[in-house]
Amino acid sequence: MAKDIEAAADYTDPPPAPLIDAEELTKWSLYRAVIAEFVATLLFLYITVATVIGYKHQSDPDVSATDAACSGVGILGIAWAFGGMIFILVYCTAGVSGGHINPAVTFGLFLARKVSLVRAVLYIIAQSLGAICGVGLVKGFQSAYYVRYGGGANELSDGYSKGTGLAAEIIGTFVLVYTVFSATDPKRNARDSHVPVLAPLPIGFAVFMVHLATIPITGTGINPARSLGAAVIYNKEKAWDDHVSDALLASCSPLLHSI
Amino acid sequence: MAKDIEAAADYTDPPPAPLIDAEELTKWSLYRAVIAEFVATLLFLYITVATVIGYKHQSDPDVSATDAACSGVGILGIAWAFGGMIFILVYCTAGVSGGHINPAVTFGLFLARKVSLVRAVLYIIAQSLGAICGVGLVKGFQSAYYVRYGGGANELSDGYSKGTGLAAEIIGTFVLVYTVFSATDPKRNARDSHVPVLAPLPIGFAVFMVHLATIPITGTGINPARSLGAAVIYNKEKAWDDHVSDALLASCSPLLHSI
Amino acid sequence: MAKDIEAAADYTDPPPAPLIDAEELTKWSLYRAVIAEFVATLLFLYITVATVIGYKHQSDPDVSATDAACSGVGILGIAWAFGGMIFILVYCTAGVSGGHINPAVTFGLFLARKVSLVRAVLYIIAQSLGAICGVGLVKGFQSAYYVRYGGGANELSDGYSKGTGLAAEIIGTFVLVYTVFSATDPKRNARDSHVPVLAPLPIGFAVFMVHLATIPITGTGINPARSLGAAVIYNKEKAWDDHVSDALLASCSPLLHSI
Amino acid sequence: MAKDIEAAADYTDPPPAPLIDAEELTKWSLYRAVIAEFVATLLFLYITVATVIGYKHQSDPDVSATDAACSGVGILGIAWAFGGMIFILVYCTAGVSGGHINPAVTFGLFLARKVSLVRAVLYIIAQSLGAICGVGLVKGFQSAYYVRYGGGANELSDGYSKGTGLAAEIIGTFVLVYTVFSATDPKRNARDSHVPVLAPLPIGFAVFMVHLATIPITGTGINPARSLGAAVIYNKEKAWDDHVSDALLASCSPLLHSI
Repeated sequence: MAKDIEAAADYTDPPPAPLIDAEELTKWSLYRAVIAEFVATLLFLYITVATVIGYKHQSDPDVSATDAACSGVGILGIAWAFGGMIFILVYCTAGVSGGHINPAVTFGLFLARKVSLVRAVLYIIAQSLGAICGVGLVKGFQSAYYVRYGGGANELSDGYSKGTGLAAEIIGTFVLVYTVFSATDPKRNARDSHVPVLAPLPIGFAVFMVHLATIPITGTGINPARSLGAAVIYNKEKAWDDHVSDALLASCSPLLHSI
Repeated sequence: MAKDIEAAADYTDPPPAPLIDAEELTKWSLYRAVIAEFVATLLFLYITVATVIGYKHQSDPDVSATDAACSGVGILGIAWAFGGMIFILVYCTAGVSGGHINPAVTFGLFLARKVSLVRAVLYIIAQSLGAICGVGLVKGFQSAYYVRYGGGANELSDGYSKGTGLAAEIIGTFVLVYTVFSATDPKRNARDSHVPVLAPLPIGFAVFMVHLATIPITGTGINPARSLGAAVIYNKEKAWDDHVSDALLASCSPLLHSI
Repeated sequence: MAKDIEAAADYTDPPPAPLIDAEELTKWSLYRAVIAEFVATLLFLYITVATVIGYKHQSDPDVSATDAACSGVGILGIAWAFGGMIFILVYCTAGVSGGHINPAVTFGLFLARKVSLVRAVLYIIAQSLGAICGVGLVKGFQSAYYVRYGGGANELSDGYSKGTGLAAEIIGTFVLVYTVFSATDPKRNARDSHVPVLAPLPIGFAVFMVHLATIPITGTGINPARSLGAAVIYNKEKAWDDHVSDALLASCSPLLHSI
Repeated sequence: MAKDIEAAADYTDPPPAPLIDAEELTKWSLYRAVIAEFVATLLFLYITVATVIGYKHQSDPDVSATDAACSGVGILGIAWAFGGMIFILVYCTAGVSGGHINPAVTFGLFLARKVSLVRAVLYIIAQSLGAICGVGLVKGFQSAYYVRYGGGANELSDGYSKGTGLAAEIIGTFVLVYTVFSATDPKRNARDSHVPVLAPLPIGFAVFMVHLATIPITGTGINPARSLGAAVIYNKEKAWDDHVSDALLASCSPLLHSI
């Protein structure tokens, strides 16, 4: 155990990111990163909501003749769609924007002073617009099915209270943000020569796991951009009531855990 | 963010591949690569179409006694077959041919001037022949089942318009080509020391994801060689009408996005 | 084969960890590791037991209208939840505590003299408390469902004897401990340049595999902390009778195999 | 493409392994490797056959009340069990024995002169004994279920000819052996800096893919040790007739492809 003390001596934390970095605004890399966040969130929402709608269509007893519930990809397939998309999108955008894709992650990294305020605000705007466009694309392609099958919006299942849904979302978001911080901790490289830091894979798996556990409860809203996009496009009162409040509170959960 | 500017200074793009490289034609490595593309596309089509036919056979209510829809590998299993085969074949052929396997990928890399025209044309011919042979093998082994269960050819599901199918294919192909370009970007090695570039895994996962989302719509034709092979061997008018046009347009989608 | 003899010559085993290391108790890194084990075991139990309860709720024929058994994530999804959580938690805590999470792993590493007695005892206490808190959280959120669906406690399936259940647990624990020792063997780095040591992935997969094979028999109690947490919170006599004895014996299985 | 020619100039093939290497017999590393092959094949057969029997028990309409076919891990779960076990066992034994586990792989590597005749014969004997012991353990634990559900032995599904089954096995074995040779090609390290050689993962995935495609046809006998172990313990005439011939021919398939 002496080893990690030495490593810590070798390693010095980078200075915290400034709140407002005027020089950053003049760099093309910032705008390229914002565009990457927009595109990644759009693709994330498009693929995942299309999977949810396609599953609900195929497993609809009024549409399929026999054994409807077995015909689609199943809830396991939906959980894979969320986890797998995060894996490939974090992989693709990690070098460009850091691969946040999720406003809760951006917020957590801002609280840890790893991104500046300017960058955090621009990322969250880009993620929200990307999410709205992604769900909009699914609605545009499959408008009849989209409305019929609930628009992929998160709603509390019957039999669970709002408090339960919120608590489940907070723990789920904590699992995700904890994995993100572990995977991107710069001390790891110095300390663990035997655990290579292949960051996107465990982050994607964390999303997969959280969906397995919380889809039966709330549909899983650990990504506020996803909840927002689905709620804006679906635009039904129940989804707004339940889930925008969820989304706001879920955004705050990294606050609770990062401090 | 100063880091990636320095890295960019260190890094110089390789010159674009020439349109026609006469010297390339004299090298054995080109022909070895063309053979690898042929074999890889053949194995890809054989395994995936056999999985589709086997699933349709096992889940046929006329064949299985009870709960037919649950007896096979499910749509999730089919999506794994496509994604997993791309993972292992890209892994196996990456060092020989670059691991394209898909004419849309070859076309995109040609547009980005990363492969020469000669190589692109030879690859696409090899991929098309491999796809036809692979589907032919499945038909040869299981001729009765092959025709009965639709030959693994892509057809639009009822209730979706041709425009929807085409748009879904274009976005799906974009997700794939975007991942391929990210995974093979030579700037990554210079820039991201904390995100190792294990290219075949995210590419395979991208194929898995796109199948989860678009199997319910079109059966997923993001690989024009697959659509062509199935259409040639199955040779029914509906599949040709719907899918050869799809295949042609899907081939063009990297064009739209690469420019 | 001469290669590994030379490598063995280069490599010298670290001295065995002392039974009681007084100096260790004064270091913050020990307490940080104990906290990490507590948090990781809590999250492991919370996510996995929530997945089990959610699956049983969704597949309950009295709740879902049609095709109830197909509505949830399935036993395959439960096995993924266990394997995937171990993957991400070992990944997150490997650098802090070594990523044991399982008392059987801690006990095995203590027998191999890789951790001191003090550390082993503190880890096992932290894991047991974490497991009880994790299952308690699930019960707190979903108290009605928790009791109704058996509390996620392990119980022998009908038709299997206690000896069969115990033997299945011993082999399962052996598979896990064997993988852990292989993955963390410091000789690997010296010997296998072509097999990188990405330790958390095979360990997570080993847990996934063992669950696929033994969920039908005992529900899989290869993690004594999991069995203990579920038994304490669920607190039914049958679970205690069957599974605390199982848990004790499963803890001893590394003893049999490590000697 | 000039790059790989230079790399090839840097790289010189190791000399072929001698047919009989007397010195090898005096080394402990040979016997350690034989023991590792025995243990790995035993665990492989135990876990996979237990998964098959457990699935057949849970999905038996006479045992489960409702929706029996959905209650188990499904064919997808069985394919994961085979692929995942190969992944972890190749990972664990790669540094000790090379991680063959499958007589077809040992035979292919012998034909390629990468292992000596003595080593190949000892490995195949160890694999066969390990397979028989592994299936024997399952029979010992679950004797009633084992016989009732067909013993995990491979049998041709109705409606497929023996030629079809054999051809499917040959292509499946080719996919596996092709991946093994690609993953362990020592030229890779010299040539592909951007495709790290994480060998066990694609090999495990290749096994997963082949099972998805050929379980509906023959139950997949690409591992002759598995077919042998199941046939010896189950000891029914039909399994012997169909599958020992299959096993012999499948063993020969690397011969066809390696030459």
